[in-house]
Amino acid sequence: MAEKPKKPQKLKARLPRGLADRGPAEIAATRAMLERIRSVYERYGFEPVETPAFEYTDALGKFLPDQDRPNEGVFSLQDDDEQWISLRYDLTAPLARYVAENFDTLPKPYRSYRVGYVYRNEKPGPGRFRQFMQFDADTVGSSSPAADAEMCMMAADTMEALGIPRGSYVVKVNNRKVLDGVRDAIGVTDDGQWLTVMRAIDKLDRLGIAGVAQLLGEGRKDVSGDFTKGAGLSAADIALVIGAIQTGEKSATDTRLRESEIGKQGHAELEEISQLVVASGYGPDRIIIDPSVVRGLEYYTGAVYEVELLLDTKDEKGRPVRFGSVGGGGRYDGLVSRFRGEIVPATGFSIGVSRLQAALTMLGQLDTRPEFGPVVVTVFDRDRLADYQKMVASLRSAGIRAELYLGNPKNMGNQLKYADRRNSPCVIIQGSDEKSRGEVQIKDLIEGAKAAAAIASNQEWRETRPAQFSCREDELVAKVRDVLARHNVTWI
Amino acid sequence: MAEKPKKPQKLKARLPRGLADRGPAEIAATRAMLERIRSVYERYGFEPVETPAFEYTDALGKFLPDQDRPNEGVFSLQDDDEQWISLRYDLTAPLARYVAENFDTLPKPYRSYRVGYVYRNEKPGPGRFRQFMQFDADTVGSSSPAADAEMCMMAADTMEALGIPRGSYVVKVNNRKVLDGVRDAIGVTDDGQWLTVMRAIDKLDRLGIAGVAQLLGEGRKDVSGDFTKGAGLSAADIALVIGAIQTGEKSATDTRLRESEIGKQGHAELEEISQLVVASGYGPDRIIIDPSVVRGLEYYTGAVYEVELLLDTKDEKGRPVRFGSVGGGGRYDGLVSRFRGEIVPATGFSIGVSRLQAALTMLGQLDTRPEFGPVVVTVFDRDRLADYQKMVASLRSAGIRAELYLGNPKNMGNQLKYADRRNSPCVIIQGSDEKSRGEVQIKDLIEGAKAAAAIASNQEWRETRPAQFSCREDELVAKVRDVLARHNVTWI
Repeated sequence: MAEKPKKPQKLKARLPRGLADRGPAEIAATRAMLERIRSVYERYGFEPVETPAFEYTDALGKFLPDQDRPNEGVFSLQDDDEQWISLRYDLTAPLARYVAENFDTLPKPYRSYRVGYVYRNEKPGPGRFRQFMQFDADTVGSSSPAADAEMCMMAADTMEALGIPRGSYVVKVNNRKVLDGVRDAIGVTDDGQWLTVMRAIDKLDRLGIAGVAQLLGEGRKDVSGDFTKGAGLSAADIALVIGAIQTGEKSATDTRLRESEIGKQGHAELEEISQLVVASGYGPDRIIIDPSVVRGLEYYTGAVYEVELLLDTKDEKGRPVRFGSVGGGGRYDGLVSRFRGEIVPATGFSIGVSRLQAALTMLGQLDTRPEFGPVVVTVFDRDRLADYQKMVASLRSAGIRAELYLGNPKNMGNQLKYADRRNSPCVIIQGSDEKSRGEVQIKDLIEGAKAAAAIASNQEWRETRPAQFSCREDELVAKVRDVLARHNVTWI
Repeated sequence: MAEKPKKPQKLKARLPRGLADRGPAEIAATRAMLERIRSVYERYGFEPVETPAFEYTDALGKFLPDQDRPNEGVFSLQDDDEQWISLRYDLTAPLARYVAENFDTLPKPYRSYRVGYVYRNEKPGPGRFRQFMQFDADTVGSSSPAADAEMCMMAADTMEALGIPRGSYVVKVNNRKVLDGVRDAIGVTDDGQWLTVMRAIDKLDRLGIAGVAQLLGEGRKDVSGDFTKGAGLSAADIALVIGAIQTGEKSATDTRLRESEIGKQGHAELEEISQLVVASGYGPDRIIIDPSVVRGLEYYTGAVYEVELLLDTKDEKGRPVRFGSVGGGGRYDGLVSRFRGEIVPATGFSIGVSRLQAALTMLGQLDTRPEFGPVVVTVFDRDRLADYQKMVASLRSAGIRAELYLGNPKNMGNQLKYADRRNSPCVIIQGSDEKSRGEVQIKDLIEGAKAAAAIASNQEWRETRPAQFSCREDELVAKVRDVLARHNVTWI
């Protein structure tokens, strides 16, 4: 630890950048999403597994894009035995460690899913967080393109289970070997230059053909005037790359491309995936081959896939927003091998839950209505707290959400305001008059709100006291149940 | 980051100490537990909130016990703007930050619950982890003992909702002010000495009166011969402390104790809590006043409570184990104030989910039977993968968990072994003979296992082929449904 800083008079309550708190509506929406995703993954035969947030840094490896930056995107610290440990930056690297550690006891192929937060030590921005949730599925121990095909179908099924209609999303499939074929064809030997080429291809959606062509050549100046240096390819090579990455251009015309062995292998695998998904009824309205898909992570070795939302929507300022990728994955045959010293084929798929939730919220696909709060038992006489507490206990025993007002009870108006804030269906009141008659008052807040809208004057309100009635103490639970039933109040 | 270490030939797959992976049965058990806890907390009117894993170090504060150790129990690292950030060590300190940050928009009193992993940079031991799960509830903005009483009742209800019978747990309540009264009475002014006294009291359950008396005096030598230095109190003071912390000794006889103002206040608050819980029907079979309860965290200012499992059980080596505390909490009126510069009363309760789960597992209260795996469609002819994939897709469309065998298909025996490992209810087989007749074979593995137990010889087995039958291709879904129904196979 560093030297203790001088203690300020009053601490400022704030979060580090790129982190966020989440309230009831958001939490409920996530829960609903996770249940739907889980149900699809389990229908596909995947079983859950969970790994901790920390791993040894060397076990995670360094596969994040932009690894040229100093902090490398990972939160790391030294353990008390001097070893470096890191927070997981995805759920794939920890799975590779888990499978390697438990290799002999796991059924193989091993299909598993896992959900959890991952952490990236990156510069946060709008909609870009340093803690976010992923939901992954992986098949380890199968080199069959059928395993990749299955991931793509599962991705499509998951989107539809989440309420995204067919045609509003697409699963795009490519193969790193196809990209390696392009590299062969243009003869790029420098890894740095090739990374620049890959990054340029990755921007096709955003910049279009012309923009990518600039980035493949000398470079590109964006609207703000910033210049990005290009890969420096020749005009012929640029034409080859552009031809190779365009969807629909099935057989590239350049003979250099057709001659690459690795490229041919990639195309053959893509063809097999394509046949399998079509045989299962997944046409191009759900899954397409797209030779421009790159995926940023560096551990991919074969098929790569990406789920893209096709809907345009507007952000809070009314500007059009395209969500783009909400999930993806690919084949990483080398990741488990790092521990095993033998090839262990593997393929996996990851949904960006936090990102997808933001998209679904914008699309109005998530129910974010506030739930009803608890029944509030108010405190009229502060020396009879035990009586009120007993009422609360009887309601709770009957399975009704209920609470005692725990603030300062001197002002009944504040107690009713509190019940409104909590979206309570009704409040319970017992003054000394009611107590002496063995009665309680039930104030139906839902009915009351409707009545209030229809009542013209304060006087009329005071005279009619709408939606408030008395009952015997021993009828309390039954009468509250009536109010809840009348307004269809249910709690999940 | 440190210098890159020399890359070893083959990485060792292992987790840092005090961290653990979790498999399907454990994950399912946690899910079931969380649902039950959540349901009780919501019946009490609490609403969910979630904060991220990281906070600024100064926002979390330093309230862990044993803070004399150098790393202070917290995982910390410096952000790229040089500020220290830490992983949360509990769910209370982040809540205090959250409430202070959102003070004006939250309903008050603010009742909330949250669940998640917390991290302690401690020396791990058996059953002691550096990542574990807590499930907390807190009421902020109420100084009423009714808020504390509610926490105790909720703790009791939660234990019973988790299947722990009444009498097998107890909620013990004390008040830090009662302990402060003891300090007043014996006139301890040195904070270090008082900490030693508190730690001695905290060991009453484990060491008994005699052991605590030694630790209050000169010190104590344990069975291994290790000596722990004591608090150095006089014999009269030791007698006072021992008298004060014994359950059942309601009014301490020492006049010094009766004269402490803070002590009197503590006793009055305990009395009020006691009356409220008794009025709600929670007798001493569920909630008791126990003046020896301390609680380790340093932010408590009033009532403190602890849930203890009373069941003795045996560990895997047959030795008796007492679980002890599985949750607790208390009043922390100063924690939000650190940010607000005004008193904000608060009280909360935390369940140690990981610890309680270990206890429930030992008690046999958690269903840890393995679930049924998916129906496995085997690969007989490897050039007809698309046909098999289509069968899988039709089963999945019907809501049946199903998968294609994705390993090397050359050996049917391996495929059947795999299905056994996955606990599959049945497998589907289609060779070229069946294909030409438009049929598939269904092998009922549950029936088969029963039959195998009854069959004497390999020859008899081969001749009868029990629990295997043919059906038309278009009957596949219906016939698989029959098999699942016959054996009551359901998936959660």
